Amino acid sequence: MTTTELTNLDNPTLRTELQALLDNKTKPLGSLGRLEQLALQIGLILQTTKPVLQQPQMLVCAGDHGLVKRGVSLFPQDVTWQMVENFLAGGAAVSVLARQNGIALTVADCGVAHDFAPRPALRICKVAPGTQDCTQAPAMTTAQCQQALNNGAQLVKSLPGNALMLGEMGIGNTSPAALILSRLGGHAIADCTGAGTGLDDAGIVRKTAVLAEALAKHPQATEPLDVLATFGGFEIATMTGAFLQAAAENRVILVDGFIVCSALLVAARIHPLVLQRCVFAHKSGERGHALMLQTLGAQPLLDLGLRLGEGSGAATAWPLLQSACTILNEMASFSQAGVDQA
Amino acid sequence: MTTTELTNLDNPTLRTELQALLDNKTKPLGSLGRLEQLALQIGLILQTTKPVLQQPQMLVCAGDHGLVKRGVSLFPQDVTWQMVENFLAGGAAVSVLARQNGIALTVADCGVAHDFAPRPALRICKVAPGTQDCTQAPAMTTAQCQQALNNGAQLVKSLPGNALMLGEMGIGNTSPAALILSRLGGHAIADCTGAGTGLDDAGIVRKTAVLAEALAKHPQATEPLDVLATFGGFEIATMTGAFLQAAAENRVILVDGFIVCSALLVAARIHPLVLQRCVFAHKSGERGHALMLQTLGAQPLLDLGLRLGEGSGAATAWPLLQSACTILNEMASFSQAGVDQA
Repeated sequence: MTTTELTNLDNPTLRTELQALLDNKTKPLGSLGRLEQLALQIGLILQTTKPVLQQPQMLVCAGDHGLVKRGVSLFPQDVTWQMVENFLAGGAAVSVLARQNGIALTVADCGVAHDFAPRPALRICKVAPGTQDCTQAPAMTTAQCQQALNNGAQLVKSLPGNALMLGEMGIGNTSPAALILSRLGGHAIADCTGAGTGLDDAGIVRKTAVLAEALAKHPQATEPLDVLATFGGFEIATMTGAFLQAAAENRVILVDGFIVCSALLVAARIHPLVLQRCVFAHKSGERGHALMLQTLGAQPLLDLGLRLGEGSGAATAWPLLQSACTILNEMASFSQAGVDQA
Repeated sequence: MTTTELTNLDNPTLRTELQALLDNKTKPLGSLGRLEQLALQIGLILQTTKPVLQQPQMLVCAGDHGLVKRGVSLFPQDVTWQMVENFLAGGAAVSVLARQNGIALTVADCGVAHDFAPRPALRICKVAPGTQDCTQAPAMTTAQCQQALNNGAQLVKSLPGNALMLGEMGIGNTSPAALILSRLGGHAIADCTGAGTGLDDAGIVRKTAVLAEALAKHPQATEPLDVLATFGGFEIATMTGAFLQAAAENRVILVDGFIVCSALLVAARIHPLVLQRCVFAHKSGERGHALMLQTLGAQPLLDLGLRLGEGSGAATAWPLLQSACTILNEMASFSQAGVDQA
């Protein structure tokens, strides 16, 4: 996994061609702002002046967390599997938003503490029924982490299309995300720790203390994959593998919120060129996400105070990527339309 | 026009019902942020707990401006009619974005200095072939202004659906918009004047001087309709009439950028309850729009540096309104999905 080479997609010739096409569309120069930058980036990723987003996929990765027994979340652990059922039944936020926007939804059991009945949209790639409590031991073994990374790669390989969104479900999983951000980004844990599903201020103080304990327990974990295995979750490690595979396939990756970004941070520390393939959907309302985006050098498209996870922010932002391609592919140039230039 | 009564749509009982529905959806409380507020607002506008947006309409109003001979724009006046042709041919930004998002597009000649051949999607409601130069005389007479207001009302009456977007085309029309904002908002003209289609700094200084001259010429124009007639454009006055009519019909109004907002500012000064029906699509890159939004008390959905006009920002933001309704109408509640609450 870690030895895959990624192509540098910043092709100056193609960049110049794309910019010239955008500059000749019937509009004042640069007046479509971020949509123009987005069109240019998507063209570079798909290596064409006529990028068409095909069969967009939302892969929601679910897992449970040993840390939950330390009281880091407002919701009980059973909500993880209950929400997986809700995704599959079509009633969750990501379900309805994906349906609205024509995005295919696949759910992966990466490590939920529950046995699911098989369903067409459910992939069982359970490494174990939840991670270990990382205040006591590494969340997973090196072998388990590798298994989850491989699962993520295999999941992506099995999905069609040239555009991928990742989402996640795992009660307690803002905690591993905060730990990964703190350790890999070199930030104080208090700056990485937020309310998650809705802790009050006292709850956040208790959560922060638990996470500080976890960091103190494992001072030796500093390399990306060690950090992932020590503090991560099975859904996070699966997403890291999915990011690396999607990047190797040059898919357009639309990145959701805090937890998805923690998986990406690990992937980007292994292969920085992963970030060339990434569009950031939104700045979430979870404390720590702004710092996460800054650490990734990311400029998100939306800022709507979303803090739900599941991939819901990515599904919400998806039409903006279609708009970017539509502008590039369908707008007339000045000469085509017979419009005078300035 | 000015005597139409608007219903106060802030129904506390319905608001409580909508909030309870949103709070019982399978997600942490409030975790869909602005989308939840948007669902609540749309429910209040359409006066139902199950709001469905039907047959969304984009009405692009075009007109020419006497001020253009004073050099306030980078582009020549002929671009107004050329772009109307481009809208109708389907090659402009608003054409392709409306098509992407299933929005019906209608173009209105409100006062373009050009004779158009009739087309199904073109409405001819030309008050005159361009306004007067308002540094010399009022842009239009009181009777012309009333005619444009009536035209806007009639246009909206003729369009189906319960959701309206307005767009505009008119070389030079950031100038009347800046004048309206300055006079009605009580702001210095320099704070209201920007680059428009791409003036450089020296060009903005010259434009600001021309606009200051126009304001000095007409110190008596302070009432909303006087300001509109004295400084406005036929497309702006038509949009003001369209806003008032759409508000009277309780349509959901998705508001585009700087020029569209200047028409709304006039409408809102006549009937403040118009604003209950308005969702603000975006903060544009045009200087003055942030001040305009502040003057309107508006919180825009997007901030993507768009500064094209035409309704392109509204067409881009449209899927977010659909997402808001989708969440309210299609997400499962905790009890429906069998998910434990916190």
